[in-house]
Amino acid sequence: MNWDLTRPGEIETAAPTLFNAGLVFIGVIRTPYLTRDDCPRQGSADGPMCRIEVADLWKPALKGLEAYERIEVLYWMHQARRDLLVQNPKSDGMTFGTFALRSPVRPNPIATASCVLVAVENGAVLVRGLDCVDGTPLLDLKPDRRGFVPQATPNPGEVTRGETSAAN
Amino acid sequence: MNWDLTRPGEIETAAPTLFNAGLVFIGVIRTPYLTRDDCPRQGSADGPMCRIEVADLWKPALKGLEAYERIEVLYWMHQARRDLLVQNPKSDGMTFGTFALRSPVRPNPIATASCVLVAVENGAVLVRGLDCVDGTPLLDLKPDRRGFVPQATPNPGEVTRGETSAAN
Repeated sequence: MNWDLTRPGEIETAAPTLFNAGLVFIGVIRTPYLTRDDCPRQGSADGPMCRIEVADLWKPALKGLEAYERIEVLYWMHQARRDLLVQNPKSDGMTFGTFALRSPVRPNPIATASCVLVAVENGAVLVRGLDCVDGTPLLDLKPDRRGFVPQATPNPGEVTRGETSAAN
Repeated sequence: MNWDLTRPGEIETAAPTLFNAGLVFIGVIRTPYLTRDDCPRQGSADGPMCRIEVADLWKPALKGLEAYERIEVLYWMHQARRDLLVQNPKSDGMTFGTFALRSPVRPNPIATASCVLVAVENGAVLVRGLDCVDGTPLLDLKPDRRGFVPQATPNPGEVTRGETSAAN
Protein backbone atom coordinates (compact mmCIF):
# COMPACT_ATOMS: atom_id res chain seq x y z
CA MET A 1 0.00 0.00 0.00
CA ASN A 2 1.19 3.49 -0.81
CA TRP A 3 0.88 5.27 2.55
CA ASP A 4 1.72 8.70 1.21
CA LEU A 5 -0.83 8.87 -1.58
CA THR A 6 -3.47 11.58 -1.24
CA ARG A 7 -6.88 10.03 -1.99
CA PRO A 8 -9.93 11.62 -3.64
CA GLY A 9 -11.70 14.03 -1.30
CA GLU A 10 -8.76 14.39 1.07
CA ILE A 11 -7.75 17.93 2.03
CA GLU A 12 -4.07 18.72 2.52
CA THR A 13 -2.40 21.57 4.32
CA ALA A 14 1.30 22.39 4.60
CA ALA A 15 3.29 19.96 6.74
CA PRO A 16 4.46 21.68 9.92
CA THR A 17 8.00 23.03 9.77
CA LEU A 18 8.08 25.39 12.78
CA PHE A 19 7.62 23.66 16.11
CA ASN A 20 6.37 24.86 19.50
CA ALA A 21 7.82 22.13 21.71
CA GLY A 22 10.30 19.27 21.49
CA LEU A 23 9.99 15.57 22.26
CA VAL A 24 12.66 13.19 23.47
CA PHE A 25 12.52 9.55 22.48
CA ILE A 26 12.90 7.56 25.71
CA GLY A 27 13.07 4.07 24.25
CA VAL A 28 12.04 1.86 21.38
CA ILE A 29 9.15 -0.55 20.85
CA ARG A 30 9.78 -4.02 19.48
CA THR A 31 6.83 -5.68 17.76
CA PRO A 32 6.34 -8.51 15.24
CA TYR A 33 5.13 -5.96 12.67
CA LEU A 34 8.02 -5.13 10.36
CA THR A 35 6.16 -2.77 8.03
CA ARG A 36 3.02 -0.65 8.22
CA ASP A 37 1.25 -3.17 5.99
CA ASP A 38 1.80 -5.83 8.68
CA CYS A 39 0.21 -3.79 11.50
CA PRO A 40 -3.36 -4.45 12.64
CA ARG A 41 -5.64 -1.41 12.69
CA GLN A 42 -6.06 -1.81 16.45
CA GLY A 43 -4.05 -3.75 19.01
CA SER A 44 -5.74 -6.45 21.04
CA ALA A 45 -5.43 -7.60 24.65
CA ASP A 46 -4.76 -11.12 23.35
CA GLY A 47 -2.40 -9.98 20.61
CA PRO A 48 1.29 -10.90 20.49
CA MET A 49 3.66 -9.92 23.27
CA CYS A 50 5.64 -6.78 22.48
CA ARG A 51 8.77 -5.52 24.19
CA ILE A 52 9.23 -1.87 25.16
CA GLU A 53 12.93 -1.18 25.64
CA VAL A 54 13.35 1.86 27.89
CA ALA A 55 16.61 3.82 27.51
CA ASP A 56 19.09 3.34 30.37
CA LEU A 57 18.69 6.94 31.56
CA TRP A 58 14.96 6.44 32.16
CA LYS A 59 14.98 2.95 33.70
CA PRO A 60 14.75 4.28 37.31
CA ALA A 61 11.43 5.88 36.32
CA LEU A 62 9.85 2.38 36.00
CA LYS A 63 9.84 1.90 39.78
CA GLY A 64 6.36 0.73 40.84
CA LEU A 65 4.94 0.33 37.32
CA GLU A 66 4.65 -3.44 37.85
CA ALA A 67 1.73 -2.85 40.24
CA TYR A 68 -0.62 -2.01 37.36
CA GLU A 69 -2.58 -4.46 35.21
CA ARG A 70 -2.97 -2.04 32.34
CA ILE A 71 -0.70 0.77 31.25
CA GLU A 72 -1.00 3.55 28.74
CA VAL A 73 1.76 3.62 26.14
CA LEU A 74 2.43 6.82 24.20
CA TYR A 75 4.56 6.58 21.08
CA TRP A 76 5.57 8.58 18.06
CA MET A 77 4.21 7.38 14.72
CA HIS A 78 7.41 8.35 12.98
CA GLN A 79 6.39 7.19 9.51
CA ALA A 80 3.10 9.10 9.37
CA ARG A 81 2.56 12.22 7.29
CA ARG A 82 1.21 15.21 9.22
CA ASP A 83 -0.52 17.35 6.63
CA LEU A 84 -4.06 16.01 6.13
CA LEU A 85 -7.09 17.92 7.42
CA VAL A 86 -9.71 15.59 5.95
CA GLN A 87 -9.15 11.91 5.14
CA ASN A 88 -10.76 9.19 3.04
CA PRO A 89 -9.82 6.09 5.05
CA LYS A 90 -11.57 3.46 2.92
CA SER A 91 -10.76 5.08 -0.43
CA ASP A 92 -14.51 5.08 -1.03
CA GLY A 93 -15.07 8.84 -1.13
CA MET A 94 -16.45 9.02 2.44
CA THR A 95 -14.37 11.66 4.21
CA PHE A 96 -13.77 12.39 7.89
CA GLY A 97 -11.86 15.13 9.65
CA THR A 98 -8.49 14.04 11.04
CA PHE A 99 -9.76 14.63 14.60
CA ALA A 100 -12.73 12.31 13.99
CA LEU A 101 -10.33 9.44 13.21
CA ARG A 102 -7.65 7.55 15.12
CA SER A 103 -5.55 7.42 11.93
CA PRO A 104 -1.76 7.78 12.36
CA VAL A 105 -1.93 10.77 10.00
CA ARG A 106 -2.39 13.85 12.21
CA PRO A 107 -0.55 17.11 12.95
CA ASN A 108 1.13 15.57 16.00
CA PRO A 109 1.35 11.83 15.31
CA ILE A 110 1.19 10.70 18.95
CA ALA A 111 -0.48 7.32 19.56
CA THR A 112 -2.04 6.35 22.87
CA ALA A 113 -2.57 2.64 23.53
CA SER A 114 -4.08 0.93 26.55
CA CYS A 115 -2.04 -2.27 27.00
CA VAL A 116 -2.07 -5.32 29.25
CA LEU A 117 1.11 -5.27 31.32
CA VAL A 118 2.76 -8.70 31.31
CA ALA A 119 6.05 -7.98 33.10
CA VAL A 120 8.75 -5.42 33.82
CA GLU A 121 12.14 -7.12 33.38
CA ASN A 122 15.53 -5.42 33.51
CA GLY A 123 14.23 -2.14 32.25
CA ALA A 124 12.10 -3.69 29.51
CA VAL A 125 8.32 -3.65 29.68
CA LEU A 126 6.42 -6.57 28.15
CA VAL A 127 2.87 -5.83 27.03
CA ARG A 128 0.06 -7.08 24.83
CA GLY A 129 -2.16 -4.74 22.85
CA LEU A 130 0.19 -2.76 20.63
CA ASP A 131 -0.30 -2.37 16.89
CA CYS A 132 2.73 -0.29 15.88
CA VAL A 133 5.59 -1.09 13.57
CA ASP A 134 8.82 -2.55 14.98
CA GLY A 135 11.28 0.19 15.95
CA THR A 136 8.66 2.79 16.87
CA PRO A 137 10.02 5.50 19.24
CA LEU A 138 8.62 5.51 22.78
CA LEU A 139 7.35 8.79 24.31
CA ASP A 140 5.82 7.84 27.66
CA LEU A 141 4.39 5.15 29.91
CA LYS A 142 1.70 5.77 32.55
CA PRO A 143 -0.72 3.68 34.60
CA ASP A 144 -3.97 3.31 32.67
CA ARG A 145 -6.44 5.92 33.87
CA ARG A 146 -9.03 3.24 34.68
CA GLY A 147 -6.85 1.70 37.39
CA PHE A 148 -5.14 4.78 38.79
CA VAL A 149 -5.85 6.88 41.86
CA PRO A 150 -3.63 9.96 42.28
CA GLN A 151 -0.93 9.63 44.92
CA ALA A 152 -0.70 13.36 45.49
CA THR A 153 -2.94 15.12 48.01
CA PRO A 154 -5.81 17.18 46.53
CA ASN A 155 -5.06 20.75 45.52
CA PRO A 156 -6.40 23.63 47.64
CA GLY A 157 -9.30 24.44 45.29
CA GLU A 158 -10.19 20.85 44.49
CA VAL A 159 -13.65 19.28 44.81
CA THR A 160 -13.88 15.52 44.33
CA ARG A 161 -16.65 14.32 42.04
CA GLY A 162 -17.84 11.22 40.17
CA GLU A 163 -16.11 9.42 37.31
CA THR A 164 -12.69 10.81 36.54
CA SER A 165 -10.99 11.37 33.23
CA ALA A 166 -7.48 11.17 34.75
CA ALA A 167 -5.95 13.55 32.32
CA ASN A 168 -2.28 13.68 33.17
CA MET B 1 2.57 25.39 46.35
CA ASN B 2 6.09 25.47 44.96
CA TRP B 3 5.79 23.24 41.90
CA ASP B 4 9.50 23.23 41.10
CA LEU B 5 10.80 22.13 44.48
CA THR B 6 12.62 18.78 44.52
CA ARG B 7 11.31 16.78 47.50
CA PRO B 8 13.15 14.28 49.71
CA GLY B 9 13.77 10.99 47.91
CA GLU B 10 13.17 12.39 44.44
CA ILE B 11 15.76 11.60 41.79
CA GLU B 12 16.59 14.21 39.17
CA THR B 13 18.25 13.89 35.82
CA ALA B 14 19.21 16.61 33.33
CA ALA B 15 16.28 18.31 31.66
CA PRO B 16 16.18 17.42 27.96
CA THR B 17 17.80 19.97 25.67
CA LEU B 18 18.22 17.99 22.44
CA PHE B 19 14.97 16.90 20.85
CA ASN B 20 14.08 14.07 18.48
CA ALA B 21 10.79 15.39 17.12
CA GLY B 22 8.76 18.59 17.13
CA LEU B 23 5.20 19.36 18.17
CA VAL B 24 2.86 21.99 16.82
CA PHE B 25 0.27 23.57 19.08
CA ILE B 26 -3.04 23.34 17.24
CA GLY B 27 -5.19 25.32 19.64
CA VAL B 28 -5.67 26.39 23.22
CA ILE B 29 -7.76 25.03 26.09
CA ARG B 30 -9.91 27.38 28.16
CA THR B 31 -10.75 26.15 31.68
CA PRO B 32 -11.87 27.77 34.94
CA TYR B 33 -8.51 26.85 36.52
CA LEU B 34 -6.28 29.91 36.41
CA THR B 35 -3.27 28.41 38.20
CA ARG B 36 -1.93 24.92 38.86
CA ASP B 37 -3.10 25.21 42.47
CA ASP B 38 -6.68 25.58 41.21
CA CYS B 39 -6.63 22.39 39.12
CA PRO B 40 -8.19 19.16 40.38
CA ARG B 41 -5.92 16.11 40.34
CA GLN B 42 -8.27 14.41 37.88
CA GLY B 43 -11.00 15.78 35.66
CA SER B 44 -14.55 14.54 36.12
CA ALA B 45 -17.38 13.79 33.69
CA ASP B 46 -19.60 16.13 35.71
CA GLY B 47 -16.92 18.79 36.08
CA PRO B 48 -17.21 22.27 34.60
CA MET B 49 -17.56 22.82 30.88
CA CYS B 50 -14.27 23.67 29.18
CA ARG B 51 -13.76 25.17 25.74
CA ILE B 52 -11.15 23.86 23.33
CA GLU B 53 -10.38 26.54 20.74
CA VAL B 54 -8.96 24.91 17.63
CA ALA B 55 -6.72 27.09 15.44
CA ASP B 56 -8.34 28.23 12.18
CA LEU B 57 -5.98 26.12 10.07
CA TRP B 58 -7.15 22.91 11.76
CA LYS B 59 -10.89 23.58 11.97
CA PRO B 60 -11.70 21.48 8.84
CA ALA B 61 -10.20 18.48 10.71
CA LEU B 62 -13.15 18.56 13.17
CA LYS B 63 -15.55 17.21 10.50
CA GLY B 64 -17.48 14.29 11.99
CA LEU B 65 -16.14 14.62 15.54
CA GLU B 66 -19.63 15.53 16.80
CA ALA B 67 -20.71 11.91 16.29
CA TYR B 68 -18.77 10.76 19.37
CA GLU B 69 -19.93 10.85 22.98
CA ARG B 70 -16.43 10.79 24.40
CA ILE B 71 -13.24 12.12 22.89
CA GLU B 72 -9.61 11.84 23.85
CA VAL B 73 -7.86 15.18 24.32
CA LEU B 74 -4.07 15.38 24.17
CA TYR B 75 -2.41 18.49 25.48
CA TRP B 76 0.99 19.82 26.44
CA MET B 77 1.59 20.44 30.14
CA HIS B 78 3.67 23.50 29.39
CA GLN B 79 4.39 24.42 32.99
CA ALA B 80 5.73 21.02 34.08
CA ARG B 81 9.38 20.27 34.70
CA ARG B 82 10.73 17.29 32.74
CA ASP B 83 13.70 16.08 34.76
CA LEU B 84 12.42 13.76 37.53
CA LEU B 85 13.02 10.00 37.38
CA VAL B 86 11.53 9.21 40.80
CA GLN B 87 8.90 11.34 42.56
CA ASN B 88 7.52 11.79 46.07
CA PRO B 89 3.95 12.91 45.29
CA LYS B 90 2.66 13.22 48.85
CA SER B 91 5.89 14.68 50.32
CA ASP B 92 5.76 11.74 52.73
CA GLY B 93 8.92 9.95 51.63
CA MET B 94 7.04 7.31 49.56
CA THR B 95 8.58 7.39 46.11
CA PHE B 96 7.34 6.18 42.74
CA GLY B 97 8.95 6.11 39.32
CA THR B 98 7.69 8.78 36.95
CA PHE B 99 6.17 6.08 34.67
CA ALA B 100 4.18 4.66 37.64
CA LEU B 101 2.45 8.03 38.07
CA ARG B 102 0.17 10.23 35.99
CA SER B 103 1.97 13.30 37.34
CA PRO B 104 2.48 16.20 34.88
CA VAL B 105 6.22 15.91 35.56
CA ARG B 106 7.62 13.54 32.92
CA PRO B 107 10.19 13.62 30.11
CA ASN B 108 7.47 14.38 27.54
CA PRO B 109 4.70 16.19 29.42
CA ILE B 110 1.81 15.01 27.23
CA ALA B 111 -1.54 14.57 28.99
CA THR B 112 -4.27 12.29 27.70
CA ALA B 113 -7.81 12.92 28.96
CA SER B 114 -11.02 11.07 28.14
CA CYS B 115 -13.71 13.76 28.02
CA VAL B 116 -17.46 13.95 27.55
CA LEU B 117 -18.16 15.80 24.31
CA VAL B 118 -20.87 18.42 24.81
CA ALA B 119 -20.80 20.23 21.46
CA VAL B 120 -18.73 21.29 18.47
CA GLU B 121 -19.55 24.94 17.69
CA ASN B 122 -17.82 27.16 15.13
CA GLY B 123 -14.52 25.38 15.48
CA ALA B 124 -14.62 25.22 19.28
CA VAL B 125 -15.11 21.94 21.11
CA LEU B 126 -16.99 22.00 24.42
CA VAL B 127 -16.18 19.18 26.83
CA ARG B 128 -16.39 18.13 30.46
CA GLY B 129 -13.63 16.22 32.20
CA LEU B 130 -10.53 18.36 31.84
CA ASP B 131 -8.30 19.30 34.76
CA CYS B 132 -5.67 21.50 33.12
CA VAL B 133 -4.81 25.12 33.65
CA ASP B 134 -6.42 27.82 31.48
CA GLY B 135 -4.33 28.50 28.37
CA THR B 136 -2.92 24.98 28.01
CA PRO B 137 -1.72 24.22 24.45
CA LEU B 138 -3.72 21.62 22.50
CA LEU B 139 -1.91 18.77 20.72
CA ASP B 140 -4.63 16.49 19.38
CA LEU B 141 -8.26 15.36 19.50
CA LYS B 142 -9.41 11.82 18.68
CA PRO B 143 -12.52 9.72 19.22
CA ASP B 144 -12.20 7.89 22.54
CA ARG B 145 -10.91 4.39 21.89
CA ARG B 146 -13.90 2.84 23.69
CA GLY B 147 -16.38 4.17 21.13
CA PHE B 148 -14.32 3.94 17.97
CA VAL B 149 -14.24 1.38 15.17
CA PRO B 150 -11.60 1.97 12.47
CA GLN B 151 -12.97 3.30 9.20
CA ALA B 152 -10.07 1.94 7.16
CA THR B 153 -10.17 -1.57 5.74
CA PRO B 154 -7.98 -4.16 7.55
CA ASN B 155 -4.36 -4.39 6.50
CA PRO B 156 -3.19 -7.39 4.45
CA GLY B 157 -1.59 -9.17 7.43
CA GLU B 158 -4.30 -8.34 9.92
CA VAL B 159 -6.19 -10.82 12.11
CA THR B 160 -9.14 -9.47 14.08
CA ARG B 161 -9.26 -10.49 17.74
CA GLY B 162 -11.04 -9.64 21.03
CA GLU B 163 -10.88 -6.39 22.99
CA THR B 164 -8.93 -3.69 21.23
CA SER B 165 -6.52 -1.15 22.59
CA ALA B 166 -7.09 1.26 19.67
CA ALA B 167 -3.62 2.68 19.76
CA ASN B 168 -3.56 5.41 17.18
